[in-house]
Amino acid sequence: MMSNEVRKDYLLNRWVVIAKERKKRPTDFVKKLIEKKEGVCPLCPGNEHMTPPAVLLYLSPNGEIRKERDQNGYRHKDWIVRIVPNLYPAFTPPDKERGTIKESPVLKNAAGLHEVLIESPCHDEHPGAARVSQLVHVINAYLDRLADLSGKPYVKYVSIFRNHGREAGASLSHAHTQLIATPFIPSLLEEELEASKSYWKKNHECLLCDVMERENEGPRFIWENDSFVVFAPWASVHPMEFWVLPKRHQSSMLRLSQKEIKDLAETMRVCLGGLRSLLNDPPYNFGFHTISAEDAQDCYHWHLEVYPRLAIWAGFEKSTGMFINVISPEDAAAELKHVVYLSSSNKI
Amino acid sequence: MMSNEVRKDYLLNRWVVIAKERKKRPTDFVKKLIEKKEGVCPLCPGNEHMTPPAVLLYLSPNGEIRKERDQNGYRHKDWIVRIVPNLYPAFTPPDKERGTIKESPVLKNAAGLHEVLIESPCHDEHPGAARVSQLVHVINAYLDRLADLSGKPYVKYVSIFRNHGREAGASLSHAHTQLIATPFIPSLLEEELEASKSYWKKNHECLLCDVMERENEGPRFIWENDSFVVFAPWASVHPMEFWVLPKRHQSSMLRLSQKEIKDLAETMRVCLGGLRSLLNDPPYNFGFHTISAEDAQDCYHWHLEVYPRLAIWAGFEKSTGMFINVISPEDAAAELKHVVYLSSSNKI
Repeated sequence: MMSNEVRKDYLLNRWVVIAKERKKRPTDFVKKLIEKKEGVCPLCPGNEHMTPPAVLLYLSPNGEIRKERDQNGYRHKDWIVRIVPNLYPAFTPPDKERGTIKESPVLKNAAGLHEVLIESPCHDEHPGAARVSQLVHVINAYLDRLADLSGKPYVKYVSIFRNHGREAGASLSHAHTQLIATPFIPSLLEEELEASKSYWKKNHECLLCDVMERENEGPRFIWENDSFVVFAPWASVHPMEFWVLPKRHQSSMLRLSQKEIKDLAETMRVCLGGLRSLLNDPPYNFGFHTISAEDAQDCYHWHLEVYPRLAIWAGFEKSTGMFINVISPEDAAAELKHVVYLSSSNKI
Repeated sequence: MMSNEVRKDYLLNRWVVIAKERKKRPTDFVKKLIEKKEGVCPLCPGNEHMTPPAVLLYLSPNGEIRKERDQNGYRHKDWIVRIVPNLYPAFTPPDKERGTIKESPVLKNAAGLHEVLIESPCHDEHPGAARVSQLVHVINAYLDRLADLSGKPYVKYVSIFRNHGREAGASLSHAHTQLIATPFIPSLLEEELEASKSYWKKNHECLLCDVMERENEGPRFIWENDSFVVFAPWASVHPMEFWVLPKRHQSSMLRLSQKEIKDLAETMRVCLGGLRSLLNDPPYNFGFHTISAEDAQDCYHWHLEVYPRLAIWAGFEKSTGMFINVISPEDAAAELKHVVYLSSSNKI
């Protein structure tokens, strides 16, 4: 028997017990197929009237992408990607008529934006099963909205995240991503940025560039192409968690080249496709960690974190901020490496 | 329409959106009754052979409590409270024979203990429906184990927490609490302690003593007795979250008087009983935040945090450390105040 280990995150003061004695096989988590009837999908083509007018649409009348927005009550049909305001926004733009609350050290206005990005007209075209060409449109739309939202005077951070499956918090099953623009940098990102800055001061190198070099060959490595490396992080807090890092140092996704966008689409397709085939389309969340601020440019490294939802964070995790992971990242990587390799020869 | 607010926790650098525009009624979360068949319960009387020998038992052969432990292969029957090692421990005592791993700034041995406290011989005697007299035994057993575990040379913190219901991470439905002893103070408690220390330095007062005074009369107040105050915290991260604070300043539960123990049992009974009746026995987690260290004595205030599991932390929460709560603590308190009052006239 091996002793359990407690590991610290690369950036955060966040610790996780790698519970080897409680060892589970990934396939212990394969979910049973539950057929759930759903009503009319408000995100499917033909139901555009069920959502607010689109703030951005990709249309392709003649093979070329044309960017539009819904105007004067008219809602475009035949879109490829469609972005609409969230009907129940957590953050809303400042509004002179509605006024604002008086801010204090413990209270701020929820000034920002909350949007839903519909990834495809096809209800089930989730990234793990999508055409790579469609994912290129999705990533381009992320970047368009990221640039636009980041430019608002009241926005300091934009979170791009995805909830897949009911157990991961998705209330709609149509393929979609959410964007939330907030009036300050959230604490987790702030802590990541501080750690990156102090590493830079000490070593004149980017922390995650160093991490990537170490993880690129080793027991947690999963996959790579020309532009991206995928690995299970040293202190994974979720079973089967993996991160996607651009090989070229970039603090923000906004610096992606056309070639890198295509390579990111391929990476998402094969890695999420591998996860999907290994665990029968499990619920997961993902979130991009990307910072546009000037002072992040040298030291911060944008990346994508994918969190399969195979375990429940319970009383211990919630009351201590410490985590227990029943699959070591080394075991996770070994399993994922295999299915991702198969998935990569299988993409469209 | 009111603007959404973003609020900071009393102690932590943790922010939550109080999403008033997404306003939900607590009863939107009433769970449907799902009957689940379970096999033999390993925690029920008669099945003591299915768990490891008890490290502590409360027996009551003649009305007086006698404390014992299982020894020489014999397992006591007729117990009132029973504590056993967890079969799949996250933390285990250091073991010379098995050796230890070499520690580093990002790696520690998971040296500690992990125990299960069986709260009653009656399968369903959960705190929200328990006899207050039984809860007094449960709290006394918490204190016995807390004192014992805190005394081990390799233990720096003891987490006492409860998972209630499958969706809250409970794999067994028999009434039980878990104790995990860790070799360092977990980050969340460390941050609470630091915030308490710096408030003390500035104001020569305990932060949570001040908070309690403010919350004791106001829109978030829920209940009180001679020794405890219950309120929904200003920056609740869970819908219907509430905290229980001792009125007398104490950094550690180990300082509870006999009268206070009885009052804590009553408080847990009526508050968890109120939650139970309001939402049809919803899943929840609770965790005690209690620090025994010398330097916490003046500045830290122990308390119990109860987290109903009515929402799912998804991509946004997991990738930013910021939360969205769809029931304001003021609405939560108003609903809980009513049912807790009813529950308090109904206890055994």
